[in-house]
Amino acid sequence: MKRAVVLVSGGLDSATVLAIARGEGFVCHALSFAYGQRHAAELEAARAVVRAFGAAEHRVMPIDLAAFGGSALTDPGIDVPEAPTSGIPVTYVPARNTVFLALALAWAEVLGVNDLFIGVNAVDYSGYPDCRPEFIAAFEALANLATRAGVEGARFRVHTPLIDLSKAEIIRRGLALGVDYSITMSCYQPDATGAACGRCDSCRLRREGFHAAGVNDPTRYAR
Amino acid sequence: MKRAVVLVSGGLDSATVLAIARGEGFVCHALSFAYGQRHAAELEAARAVVRAFGAAEHRVMPIDLAAFGGSALTDPGIDVPEAPTSGIPVTYVPARNTVFLALALAWAEVLGVNDLFIGVNAVDYSGYPDCRPEFIAAFEALANLATRAGVEGARFRVHTPLIDLSKAEIIRRGLALGVDYSITMSCYQPDATGAACGRCDSCRLRREGFHAAGVNDPTRYAR
Repeated sequence: MKRAVVLVSGGLDSATVLAIARGEGFVCHALSFAYGQRHAAELEAARAVVRAFGAAEHRVMPIDLAAFGGSALTDPGIDVPEAPTSGIPVTYVPARNTVFLALALAWAEVLGVNDLFIGVNAVDYSGYPDCRPEFIAAFEALANLATRAGVEGARFRVHTPLIDLSKAEIIRRGLALGVDYSITMSCYQPDATGAACGRCDSCRLRREGFHAAGVNDPTRYAR
Repeated sequence: MKRAVVLVSGGLDSATVLAIARGEGFVCHALSFAYGQRHAAELEAARAVVRAFGAAEHRVMPIDLAAFGGSALTDPGIDVPEAPTSGIPVTYVPARNTVFLALALAWAEVLGVNDLFIGVNAVDYSGYPDCRPEFIAAFEALANLATRAGVEGARFRVHTPLIDLSKAEIIRRGLALGVDYSITMSCYQPDATGAACGRCDSCRLRREGFHAAGVNDPTRYAR
């Protein structure tokens, strides 16, 4: 029985990753983080995504990155940009994927699991450094040195099935696997009803992805 | 003004590291974790150590590694060994230093700090994989790829001033810097009064260190 730890944020990408991991026959241990993000809608979406595709279990771990701040996603005092910016945007959360993968690794080692899945993408993305293939390769190298399992010969693998796909390709792949994107939440600042803003970087990439894929966009936008 | 993030557990090693970092002129941002360890005495010791040497601030971050378990230090159902064992002992906490350094990195990046200090040691130690130089080197490589600061040219450095010192050398170094080891706590299972068991791996290494250094052991043992 193949088992994997799958990071599930509730967004479009990680929903697709969970569908891919399930499609490849992995029994999935889903992991989400209440990391101080601006809204709870993301975690509600994560729960819905896990329910839809099934997992051996789903953990939502609190980890207060908002105590550090330094990002529009964790500090209410920093506005989410509503137009493309140059360079790495202020929605970058310092070392977030390093922290998330470190915790996924900890859980994986306890479970005796060597396979991790994460929905990073380096094509239609915001330029976050911890979404690039070289970051993932460095984390795999670290994982094998950091752990008892690695010392004893296990080889951790961080699966990144989306890393070189366009957003449109991700959407087509997910639809073929039966993903219902209406239950996912990509927006950085949904309103109180859970409607997406349609203006943040994440909404823009998502909306353009549906358009480029030539399929209906099921997202409920605030306007 | 040189600034550093220093991991402070409350044990002998990290107290010495804080003294060294202060001695090198670093303004220190101390970071401890309430990670589900068996006893609160460790965090009380961390607070005392930081008070003694001074820091710009001291954060104690909750991170529930006990939710994963898998170690005698986080799972009350696993006994702490009281005699040396072969291989990596059950007190190893899966991926602990990876998680701790990842969070230190997150805070450092927000602070604009490139220097991290950690009291790992690969001489008189328990064989934990995440205390070895190759692990530290891999983490430094990861840090520079994982972060906006790294992309923009910062070079993170993980200082490990104890890594090739014997426990006796660490103690002599600390005493020369004025460390009061009576306020530190190394024991994995102190009693309710905060007295050390004297039998766990950590007590054994510490006791042998004071003996080899030829100095008084100020530890209060339960027997």
